[in-house]
Amino acid sequence: MLVKEMIESHPDVGGDMNPQLVAVIVSAYRCAQACTSCADACLAEESVADLRQCIRSDLDCATICTATGEAASRRTGSNEALLRELLEVCRSACRTCAEECERHAGMHEHCRICAEACRSCEAACADALPTIGR
Amino acid sequence: MLVKEMIESHPDVGGDMNPQLVAVIVSAYRCAQACTSCADACLAEESVADLRQCIRSDLDCATICTATGEAASRRTGSNEALLRELLEVCRSACRTCAEECERHAGMHEHCRICAEACRSCEAACADALPTIGR
Amino acid sequence: MLVKEMIESHPDVGGDMNPQLVAVIVSAYRCAQACTSCADACLAEESVADLRQCIRSDLDCATICTATGEAASRRTGSNEALLRELLEVCRSACRTCAEECERHAGMHEHCRICAEACRSCEAACADALPTIGR
Amino acid sequence: MLVKEMIESHPDVGGDMNPQLVAVIVSAYRCAQACTSCADACLAEESVADLRQCIRSDLDCATICTATGEAASRRTGSNEALLRELLEVCRSACRTCAEECERHAGMHEHCRICAEACRSCEAACADALPTIGR
Repeated sequence: MLVKEMIESHPDVGGDMNPQLVAVIVSAYRCAQACTSCADACLAEESVADLRQCIRSDLDCATICTATGEAASRRTGSNEALLRELLEVCRSACRTCAEECERHAGMHEHCRICAEACRSCEAACADALPTIGR
Repeated sequence: MLVKEMIESHPDVGGDMNPQLVAVIVSAYRCAQACTSCADACLAEESVADLRQCIRSDLDCATICTATGEAASRRTGSNEALLRELLEVCRSACRTCAEECERHAGMHEHCRICAEACRSCEAACADALPTIGR
Repeated sequence: MLVKEMIESHPDVGGDMNPQLVAVIVSAYRCAQACTSCADACLAEESVADLRQCIRSDLDCATICTATGEAASRRTGSNEALLRELLEVCRSACRTCAEECERHAGMHEHCRICAEACRSCEAACADALPTIGR
Repeated sequence: MLVKEMIESHPDVGGDMNPQLVAVIVSAYRCAQACTSCADACLAEESVADLRQCIRSDLDCATICTATGEAASRRTGSNEALLRELLEVCRSACRTCAEECERHAGMHEHCRICAEACRSCEAACADALPTIGR
C-alpha cells in the first residue's frame, strides 16, 4: 500500500502525519478484501447452510471497512467527531466478524485468515481512536 | 424504490417487516446519490475554493449512506447491535453534511436539495433507532 | 429519487440535461438495492446450495450498479468514452443477473422482483448508450 | 495484502490459482486508495480550480477500482465474460486517470504517486485479460 506516501504528500498534512490513522487505512482495505473473499469462499463450501451468519458478517464487515478506508483517506477540511464514530463502528464490525470466523477457523483456512485480518483492523481502529481529537 | 417489496419477500421477514428500517434504506440510497451529485456540482462552481468543506462532507456522507443502505438491506442472520451503531454514524454524517450544505443553500440549488435529502435521512435514522433491538 | 433535480442544478448542465442518463442513475441505484436484498434473501432460503450462482450474480450486479450510479452522477469535466464503457458493463451485469434470477422467479418472489429491476436497468443502459458521445 | 492466501483457500480454486488475477485485486485496491487520497489532496491545493478534471478522474477511477477489486475477488460460480468487460473498463479508467495525474506530477507529489498506482493497475488489467477465458 502507498498509503503513507499519499497521506504525507497531502498539502494539509505536511510533517504532521498520524501513523495510527495510516495503519487504519491499510488494515481497512486489507480487511475489506479478505472479508469479500471469505464470504465468497463460504458460499462455495458444501456446508454453506451452516455458514450463513459468517457470510453476512463478512459482507457487513467488507462494506464498513471499505467505507472506513475511504473516509479515513480524506484529510481536507476535517470532521474528527465523525471519523471517531466511524472508527468505533469499524472496530465493532471487525470484532463481530472475527468472532464468527474464529468459530470456523479450524475447518476453513479462509475463515482463519479472515479472522486475523479482522482482529488486525479491530486493533488498528482501537489504537487510532485516542489519536483523533474530538 | 422496490425496497418494501424486496424486504417483504425475504424468507426470515415474513409479516414482520420494519417500516422504519425500510425508510432508512430508501433515504440512505437517495441521500448517497444527492451527496455524490452535490460534491460534483460544487466542484464545477466558480467558487470551488470556498466549497472544499462542503465537497468533503458530501463525499463522506455519500460513502457512509451507501454503506448503511447496503448493510440495512441484509436481514439474514442478524447483528442488531452493529446496525444500531451504523445508524448512529449515518445520522451524524447526514447532520454534518446538512449543516454544511445549508450554509450554501441560498447560493446553490444543489446544496439546498442535498441538505433536504440529508435531513430526511438523518430523521429516518433517528426514527429507526428505537425499533432496532439491542 | 431526486436525481433529476440534482442533475439540473449542476452548473455545467443547465438546460441541457440528458433524461436517458438520469434514468440510468435512478435504475442503477434501485437495481443495486434490489440485488443486495436478493443475495441476502437467497442466502436465507433452505435451498441456498442451489442459489450460489444467483447470489454471486446478485453481488456482482450490486457492485457494478453502485459504481455506475456514482460515476454517472458526476458531470464535472467529462469522460464520455469511459462512461460508455461503464454503461456497457452495467448492461451486461444486469442481463446476466436477470437471466439467473428469472430461473428462480417462479419459486422466489425476491428473484422475480430483482429480475425486473435488472431488466429495467439493462434497458436504461441500452437507451442511454446512443446519447453519450464518444 | 492477503489476497493470494485468500484466493488459494477458496474451495473451487485449489491449486489452480491465477496469479495475474491476484495481481489485479492487489493493484485495484491499492489504486482505489491512492485515487481517493489524490482527489482529496487536489481539493486542498490552492490551485484547486485547475485540478477539477484531476479530481473527477480520481473519483471515477477510485469507484471503478473498488468495484473491480471486489468483483475479481469472487470465484464462486463464474462469469468470466463479465469479468473481462470489467477489467477492460478498469484498464481504461486507470489510463485516463494516469494521463490526467501525469500532467500535474511535476507540481504535486500526490499526482505523481497516484499516476504510478494507476499505471500499475492498468498494466495488471492488461496482463490478466488474456488469462480470463470467454
